[in-house]
Amino acid sequence: MSETPNLPLPAANRTVFFVSDGTGITAEAFGHSVLTQFELRFKQVRLPFIDTLDKAHDATRKINEAFQVDGKLPIVFSTLVKTDLSKVIQQAKAMHMDLIQTFVEPLENELGVKSSHTIGRSHNSANSEEYKNRIEAINYSLAHDDGQSNKNLADADVILVGVSRSGKTPTSLYLAMQYGIKAANYPLIPEDFERNKLPSGLIPHKQKIFGLTIAPERLSEIRNERRPGSKYAALVNCRYEINEAEAMMRREGIRWMSSTTKSIEEIAATILQDIKPEATIF
Amino acid sequence: MSETPNLPLPAANRTVFFVSDGTGITAEAFGHSVLTQFELRFKQVRLPFIDTLDKAHDATRKINEAFQVDGKLPIVFSTLVKTDLSKVIQQAKAMHMDLIQTFVEPLENELGVKSSHTIGRSHNSANSEEYKNRIEAINYSLAHDDGQSNKNLADADVILVGVSRSGKTPTSLYLAMQYGIKAANYPLIPEDFERNKLPSGLIPHKQKIFGLTIAPERLSEIRNERRPGSKYAALVNCRYEINEAEAMMRREGIRWMSSTTKSIEEIAATILQDIKPEATIF
Repeated sequence: MSETPNLPLPAANRTVFFVSDGTGITAEAFGHSVLTQFELRFKQVRLPFIDTLDKAHDATRKINEAFQVDGKLPIVFSTLVKTDLSKVIQQAKAMHMDLIQTFVEPLENELGVKSSHTIGRSHNSANSEEYKNRIEAINYSLAHDDGQSNKNLADADVILVGVSRSGKTPTSLYLAMQYGIKAANYPLIPEDFERNKLPSGLIPHKQKIFGLTIAPERLSEIRNERRPGSKYAALVNCRYEINEAEAMMRREGIRWMSSTTKSIEEIAATILQDIKPEATIF
Repeated sequence: MSETPNLPLPAANRTVFFVSDGTGITAEAFGHSVLTQFELRFKQVRLPFIDTLDKAHDATRKINEAFQVDGKLPIVFSTLVKTDLSKVIQQAKAMHMDLIQTFVEPLENELGVKSSHTIGRSHNSANSEEYKNRIEAINYSLAHDDGQSNKNLADADVILVGVSRSGKTPTSLYLAMQYGIKAANYPLIPEDFERNKLPSGLIPHKQKIFGLTIAPERLSEIRNERRPGSKYAALVNCRYEINEAEAMMRREGIRWMSSTTKSIEEIAATILQDIKPEATIF
């Protein structure tokens, strides 16, 4: 990663549209991963819920307007399941990247089955089993945040441990929200290090524990934003806590990873590989 | 949505791989939206963090093994930025859907710029400004969940209101996590209806309020899972609360939507359209 993160990129003077018959989250996530390959800034417009011909014509008009203003072809990332909607959008003067249309036809040939071209059959849809599990997991992770409750720890898919501000809470919520994983989290605090033992509520569930650690310098930075100049945030204290936490995890045979340079997506995906390497069949 | 949600789909006896040099979240989200167009179940395997030639060869071996076992070409959704890694995966006997390679080259031509082919330049990367905003938003939303605090409501991007269990908490967290939106949420409770007034802490921030409502039947179902047979969960009580909440929102001129058949992704994307129609420039 040889990037220079805070240097402003030159503006491309070009508009990017994310067009979808649903939330547009996939079109946007995909568009971002492609666009970040270019050292340019783009103006970006989300057009979600384009699920009627009228809305498609409206979207087409907006894309054409951007072409008029920029004098350059807009870039359109779209996930449109219905061919008639996709055809309307394709009329816009733009560079089109239609994710669904590009890949669905070859898949139909390979699978020997026609696709349903139905909007909203996503497994995010609010009445699916998978969706209910995700909501239940979010509630579970919230109720078991920061060692709030030892109750029902037997139901946890994973229990994250680590010192305060090592990234446990956002990772737990992300695991629940994205993957439906019931993730409890439990802080390791100075009292645990003095007793030289894991919190007693965790001992029966040791197999499910996953540890997070973090570089003391980074931890001190994060804690200083919360409580500037405190003992809690002091580098010497962060070093002590991290040393003790890592020693404890090593001694107890707990799997762990460092969150220092990782995003919550990366931490969550790594933990998931460890606890549940295969996705579920659907 | 004419689907029959709980009917098990026939098994395709075919393995789908999500291969990525990062978390694989985009490959998987995209793969799901394509695959749900087919009335078939697939075995699914995530292969994230494929960022070296060794790992790519390993992944290729796994894909070939699945071909041996299934007797059918596996389907590979991949987001691989580096051409050499992508070439290794392409050697696997599979149907390949390489998202990046398919779209990056045409974009290079249109933009007149070479792409960087650099892994990890995603805006999810842990040191970007955008990432820090997301973490800050998650902390904010957690601290302002369920009316916990009136402090710093001036900092909120949006304040969700609605009766208990109308979907405020998961939506707030999703807005924070996905979009870096500081979303507070505040319950409307029977005391508010008796006083016939919005909670007083909210009044200075009325412009930022967004309401969630829900069909009383669905609300009663959800509450019964939590507290079976309670007055809280009784349909007659749910009807009363919803009526009062909707009347209050109408009277106060608050924008609102129904969460009844919507996923948190759909609710969040709808709210976002309302409060922040354009994505930020990056």
